[in-house]
Amino acid sequence: MRRKEFEVMDHEETLQFLQEVSFGVLGSNGEDGWPQLTPLNFVYYEGCLYFHGSHVGQKMKNLKSDTRVTFSVAKEYAIIPSYWSDTKLACPATAFFKSVLIKGHAELVSDLQQKAAALSAFMQKLQSEGGYEQIDPLDTDYIPQLKATSVVRIVISEMSAKFKFGQNMQQDRLEQITTGLVERNLELDTETATLMKAYCPHHRKQS
Amino acid sequence: MRRKEFEVMDHEETLQFLQEVSFGVLGSNGEDGWPQLTPLNFVYYEGCLYFHGSHVGQKMKNLKSDTRVTFSVAKEYAIIPSYWSDTKLACPATAFFKSVLIKGHAELVSDLQQKAAALSAFMQKLQSEGGYEQIDPLDTDYIPQLKATSVVRIVISEMSAKFKFGQNMQQDRLEQITTGLVERNLELDTETATLMKAYCPHHRKQS
Repeated sequence: MRRKEFEVMDHEETLQFLQEVSFGVLGSNGEDGWPQLTPLNFVYYEGCLYFHGSHVGQKMKNLKSDTRVTFSVAKEYAIIPSYWSDTKLACPATAFFKSVLIKGHAELVSDLQQKAAALSAFMQKLQSEGGYEQIDPLDTDYIPQLKATSVVRIVISEMSAKFKFGQNMQQDRLEQITTGLVERNLELDTETATLMKAYCPHHRKQS
Repeated sequence: MRRKEFEVMDHEETLQFLQEVSFGVLGSNGEDGWPQLTPLNFVYYEGCLYFHGSHVGQKMKNLKSDTRVTFSVAKEYAIIPSYWSDTKLACPATAFFKSVLIKGHAELVSDLQQKAAALSAFMQKLQSEGGYEQIDPLDTDYIPQLKATSVVRIVISEMSAKFKFGQNMQQDRLEQITTGLVERNLELDTETATLMKAYCPHHRKQS
């Protein structure tokens, strides 16, 4: 159930998340009737999602016979233990996360210029510090590499984002959780508390 | 392409990974013909995968009409920049990761005793420090909660694991990358270097 209160309306925030997270899971329709899932690095570039891979293999075979794909990008920020809200029941245990879901059609990019542009965007995202020469489809060192790599573009038909940071909770529970996060102080806990403040209506009303 | 050199043959190692990672992505066959993907917390318990959720919603609807599901659990350990191996080309850039893929059939768990056992395993994994009373299907505080929660079991028909830590690389490149990881020293870099040593035949030969 995609509950309305977790929906993200700000497209820029969704795109920023896609830029921050290095990999997602591609879902395609497998020949055997099961969804085929493949975790892979990706980049969102000029309105489409791109990934690359080998020419052969089951994933490419599936994409040729059925172009319908779904792509999931998710990051878990915090496991919220039950005892921050309830001393007896395990039920209030939950998790806070960001999740983006994309549906679209996959198509092979064959033009070397377009391949080079997509792979450049890919490198700028995943190796932003540089340290390589520009991917140039006229460079004789790059040409065989570009030809040997499959680049796939997902033309997006639907994109939705769900950021869950306690938007459905009452103010007293939000405060218990914020206190718990600050005290626990795991790597993402402070950031999670900040995101709760940004997304929860009760918190927003206060500020 | 699932390359043989990355395959994990040790079942215990695969299970340990499933215990360490808190969430995965469920793929089901959507009514619209697209794979439906849902990131969710899970537990591997007594040979099956379990997750829970609301009784209503698209995910449960799909699982009732088509029980075939795929589940992906993946963790990225390191982005390996190209310049550790090559001063010019971007192509050697890669990522090291662990990935487990499961195919099976989803079925609803309706028996309260079995629901309680699965949810107890779930809590032991995700809230191992305790802090709640045992989930007891005879406890009147738990009964309505157990009834209100859907628990789904994936009966596993196939499970495969791919741990990619440079097994396909020559010794000199492995050494460049190990040096790079130790110098860069991001959160998972030291662990990644250790895993390279454990999985790469060249390293294994040396020790």
